Amino acid sequence: MTLLYKADPERGQAWRRLFQERAPDIEFRQWPEVGNADEVRYLACWQPPEDLASRFPNLEVLFATSAGVDQFDLSLLPADLPVVRMLDPGIVAGMVEYATLMVLALHRQLPRYLDQQGAGRWQEHALVTAENRRVGVLGLGQIGQAVLERLTSFGFALSGWSRSPHELPGVRCHAGPDQLPAFLADCEILICLLPLTRETRGILDAELFAALPRGASLINLGRGAQLVEADLLAALDSGQLSQAILDVVEPEPPTADHPFWQHPRIWLTPHVGAMTVPETAFTVLLENIRRHQRGEPMQGLVDRQRGY
Amino acid sequence: MTLLYKADPERGQAWRRLFQERAPDIEFRQWPEVGNADEVRYLACWQPPEDLASRFPNLEVLFATSAGVDQFDLSLLPADLPVVRMLDPGIVAGMVEYATLMVLALHRQLPRYLDQQGAGRWQEHALVTAENRRVGVLGLGQIGQAVLERLTSFGFALSGWSRSPHELPGVRCHAGPDQLPAFLADCEILICLLPLTRETRGILDAELFAALPRGASLINLGRGAQLVEADLLAALDSGQLSQAILDVVEPEPPTADHPFWQHPRIWLTPHVGAMTVPETAFTVLLENIRRHQRGEPMQGLVDRQRGY
Repeated sequence: MTLLYKADPERGQAWRRLFQERAPDIEFRQWPEVGNADEVRYLACWQPPEDLASRFPNLEVLFATSAGVDQFDLSLLPADLPVVRMLDPGIVAGMVEYATLMVLALHRQLPRYLDQQGAGRWQEHALVTAENRRVGVLGLGQIGQAVLERLTSFGFALSGWSRSPHELPGVRCHAGPDQLPAFLADCEILICLLPLTRETRGILDAELFAALPRGASLINLGRGAQLVEADLLAALDSGQLSQAILDVVEPEPPTADHPFWQHPRIWLTPHVGAMTVPETAFTVLLENIRRHQRGEPMQGLVDRQRGY
Repeated sequence: MTLLYKADPERGQAWRRLFQERAPDIEFRQWPEVGNADEVRYLACWQPPEDLASRFPNLEVLFATSAGVDQFDLSLLPADLPVVRMLDPGIVAGMVEYATLMVLALHRQLPRYLDQQGAGRWQEHALVTAENRRVGVLGLGQIGQAVLERLTSFGFALSGWSRSPHELPGVRCHAGPDQLPAFLADCEILICLLPLTRETRGILDAELFAALPRGASLINLGRGAQLVEADLLAALDSGQLSQAILDVVEPEPPTADHPFWQHPRIWLTPHVGAMTVPETAFTVLLENIRRHQRGEPMQGLVDRQRGY
């Protein structure tokens, strides 16, 4: 049984050791050392090779090494090849930290206070209690739910939106396009944790911003292509939005003259919301391989129609 | 029964309404409208009047409107006058938010990423998991314990230090001067939540910084007079400390030419860690008045010897 790995080489070294220790029955090969391609049953990758179908005729499962699979062109992959996302608890923990950090930064007006420091100004502003701070999460998958759970401990007034209905303790849940405006009207701080799909490309646009309360803030932890950049700049200019915190842009990195770098109301971080932790990710991967071997359903199987 | 209030006028207006609604038997007077001073049994203040003892001969309790009483010169107050600190859950919640925000900011290297944004640089840095991030709290009173409890939910490696021994779930606790060096050696991120007393004045000095791991960070949420400013600047210059986040300085505000304003490794916020929430603070105050009336011990009674 052979697994071919084609992603970050450093993590590959960690996974090689982990396979040797904990799953010696699985032969681990690291791209570009493919060996006999007919023997490859599992491919774990960030980007699949272009000639995937012809080159690996006996491939049984394609494992993404990321939580999103938007970097794949699913239409180019064999229709019957299972594609599995990486639901690594290390990624979830990292996203929870980043989202909580940025919600608290906006809630407690850190961007404003740092600006004041630069201007030599000592001035306090009224403090809003967490109970009176309305925070909303777009996307109620594993990461969105974990973020909301952590935010609950601070007592924020929470709401969530997703394509399909959810029930989460302490969270006002909305579902589907019809309920999006009502959700947005209640978000002083909006966190995007949506997967990138046909439906979510460009979702963060002028219409969405206009539906938020005036002076709201945006945290984008989804994908850069979900944001219409010109609309964000216009919303910040008009005061409809007061601040944006972006961990993702399209493309990455942005060009040297991109307006986000020096914008006074934008914080830009270099796609560091979360990084896969080799150990926990390996555990998830191995569990899915064992499930596949036993003929059981795998965790994170991608629905080709939904795109995630 | 008369209470005289001498602090922020806006909160005074809120308290006046609350007393009328919930404790109409207590007459609320707001400084400087003292009326007949002989009738004043309770004084709630940020700073007591200088002639307190002679002016209010029938005063029974002095309620501070703050969590700390370091702004009082306790030696000038009648020895048998009970002094009570304000243990407002609103203050605790605010401090927990601020401390968590800043721990996460340091843990996730936000100061570094914001610097990079300003320089137009897109570069990610290795992510340390919370389990491998050592965070320590100086001061294990009500606020320190609440901060540690919230940090526990992120999985940080936590330790705490205080004058007297404590046992807290998930926290390695140290006590007394002898155990301070062992505590400090384990703090990559150190949060000061100590009260200002004779013992803690100037405690954040070169000796303390030298006992931290190289490159550690400091968050001061205690009092400005606990910090030896020249020692902090030297520790940042040498690289012994990598970052300081200060919500308090001495005096406040610092002078216009103070080096903290423009220091590249210091974040300075204008004493906004927490603000008393009139409603919750009123509830705590009224409960203590009722306890006093019933002859029961009050919450937050200051030990004159300890100074808090």
